[in-house]
Amino acid sequence: MTDNLTLQEAAETAIPVTLGERSYQILIGEDLLGKTALHLDSFLPGARCAVVSDENVAGLHLDKLKRGLQEQGLYLGEIIVPPGESSKCFARLEQVCDRLLDLGVERGDCVIAFGGGVVGDLAGFAASILRRGVNLLQIPTSLLAQVDSSVGGKTGIDMPQGKNLIGTFFQPALVLADMSVLSTLPERQIRAGYAEVAKYGLIGDAEFFAWLETAWPEIIEGGTDARKKAIATSCRAKAAIVAEDEKEESGKRALLNLGHTFGHALEAFTGYSDTLLHGEAIAIGMTLAFRFSAEEGICEPADAERVKAHFQAVGLPTEIADIDGAKPSAAEMLRLMAQDKKVHAGQLNLVLVRGIGSAYLDAKFDMDALTAFLQRECAP
Amino acid sequence: MTDNLTLQEAAETAIPVTLGERSYQILIGEDLLGKTALHLDSFLPGARCAVVSDENVAGLHLDKLKRGLQEQGLYLGEIIVPPGESSKCFARLEQVCDRLLDLGVERGDCVIAFGGGVVGDLAGFAASILRRGVNLLQIPTSLLAQVDSSVGGKTGIDMPQGKNLIGTFFQPALVLADMSVLSTLPERQIRAGYAEVAKYGLIGDAEFFAWLETAWPEIIEGGTDARKKAIATSCRAKAAIVAEDEKEESGKRALLNLGHTFGHALEAFTGYSDTLLHGEAIAIGMTLAFRFSAEEGICEPADAERVKAHFQAVGLPTEIADIDGAKPSAAEMLRLMAQDKKVHAGQLNLVLVRGIGSAYLDAKFDMDALTAFLQRECAP
Repeated sequence: MTDNLTLQEAAETAIPVTLGERSYQILIGEDLLGKTALHLDSFLPGARCAVVSDENVAGLHLDKLKRGLQEQGLYLGEIIVPPGESSKCFARLEQVCDRLLDLGVERGDCVIAFGGGVVGDLAGFAASILRRGVNLLQIPTSLLAQVDSSVGGKTGIDMPQGKNLIGTFFQPALVLADMSVLSTLPERQIRAGYAEVAKYGLIGDAEFFAWLETAWPEIIEGGTDARKKAIATSCRAKAAIVAEDEKEESGKRALLNLGHTFGHALEAFTGYSDTLLHGEAIAIGMTLAFRFSAEEGICEPADAERVKAHFQAVGLPTEIADIDGAKPSAAEMLRLMAQDKKVHAGQLNLVLVRGIGSAYLDAKFDMDALTAFLQRECAP
Repeated sequence: MTDNLTLQEAAETAIPVTLGERSYQILIGEDLLGKTALHLDSFLPGARCAVVSDENVAGLHLDKLKRGLQEQGLYLGEIIVPPGESSKCFARLEQVCDRLLDLGVERGDCVIAFGGGVVGDLAGFAASILRRGVNLLQIPTSLLAQVDSSVGGKTGIDMPQGKNLIGTFFQPALVLADMSVLSTLPERQIRAGYAEVAKYGLIGDAEFFAWLETAWPEIIEGGTDARKKAIATSCRAKAAIVAEDEKEESGKRALLNLGHTFGHALEAFTGYSDTLLHGEAIAIGMTLAFRFSAEEGICEPADAERVKAHFQAVGLPTEIADIDGAKPSAAEMLRLMAQDKKVHAGQLNLVLVRGIGSAYLDAKFDMDALTAFLQRECAP
């Protein structure tokens, strides 16, 4: 029966990412894993697949993905990396590339990034440099990856100097967001991913944020309709921004980094560990961006309060004080924030807000005010 | 005075590489190194520079390049790698990236690849992945790099499985081919680079090849006019092919690999060592491609003889028997040739010739005939 379904029927929701000859679709639905061979046949006929995944995801879901591909004779093998941010390093990248070559992946074949943000970034990077670029299929398995990192073509690894400092812009041929796999995610991971969902409301869609203020319990708990709306709205928002500014040149794409300059600094400070997940870090970061904007008189204080109240309700951290263990000093925050890729000619650019749904890139904010703000926020 | 020169006057010859928003120029002339800051100011105003070079080139020419950049306050520092193919590896790439970050190279800044093919490939790769891509200026210092590897945007490193298997397509913002630096090259390197010059004649320009048959001594010995014509004609030919098929999709760009499938196998066999330089390997490879084409009845035997006679006159090797030390067996050649990036769905594609100036990509040649041919060529 499956074979007779059109892709749209099988996937229920298809969102285009319009990038000329690099355009692709995001398919969102339930039970998509088993249909991967069908989707591949439509988008990349004849492509054989090597799957890159992590130990957690592979243990839970690899069989389902593998079976359909094996039946079609399209399965080359899998490469399983340890879970966690520490896999985003040169040594692991080299190992993945070496194994992909051993598996015989050719230009017309396909690397499947099957996991959360770490696997997507690492496998995406490997696909982009293997034989100067082979096809990439993103199958994100975390909420965060489904609504953010799997879409838009950013790949990369971390360096001692900072996160994602080495990588490529490399668009996938297709993104398959299978909502069914989210059922095995720990709730903390769902909450962390939710922070990226809320981000799209805060950046440019006040109405979506207002909807989230009532719909969030259903999204966290797994209500299919609410989740699908949340994922689809997020992907649509991201696709529109990426289509407008694929390589972060106009400043438009930088808006997706609302809360991220603060957030990345916090993640660096906590060693990219489980102490603070990426989504948790940016929940704090977005709260700080709103509060700093309010203190600077750019945004209504009521909006900053509303953002904080929402993340608190959801159960996300909102203050530097919410971090377990040691807290960064203002000086440490400033030093870590200066490693941001949005630094141009030594000037830090920060995504600030005029209100909920109205973020903008500010290159002229008052650095002294930011320093004073961080001194208050970081105070013990 | 220099400041009042237009770029074209300063560079004498400017060849455009037309690739839409990724278009750039190749400037060919004498004494360009000292004018690098001037050129940069026109193409990348305000960009600060980090230079990647090797010990040999840096020792001879870095001061000249550095001085002008320092005077303009645009010099961030240099990264010197060991000369030779062994620098094209993951460990060295990581080290270069790490140092570029420490030097503070930002998105708007520029990495200068200052050296031969190895430095161009390695530094170009690093520039393409540093912060997901910073500006790249190629200043090729070998004849081979000036006529081939610095133009067209191929970057990469080697893997145990084969050469250039990991890399990117990443176009430079500018190529500066300073003919003056060629005066310090050993003659063996000039001869090896010359093989790539002759290639453009053999691929698609019979008239150019005929001119080379008489002009070659002047090119090897350093006659400025002949060298400039040779370099400019080569760059123009490469630019036209790259403009037509930037990412090796239509088969057109594959023509640049005339002799390279044989040649890469020979380089792999000799361990990418000084036993056989890349240009020497492809001189043998092109001779083999012509002879195999002649044996298959695709090309006149007289053309194959003429190609061999020319490379012999120039002092380049033309036979597998010309390699010092151990020679590969036919089976070893076939195994190494199968790692070629032009393998699609397990089928080796080979650039063959209908005659001098008429190369084409053949996906349907007789594999048994190739095996028999190699058995004869590799016989002790």
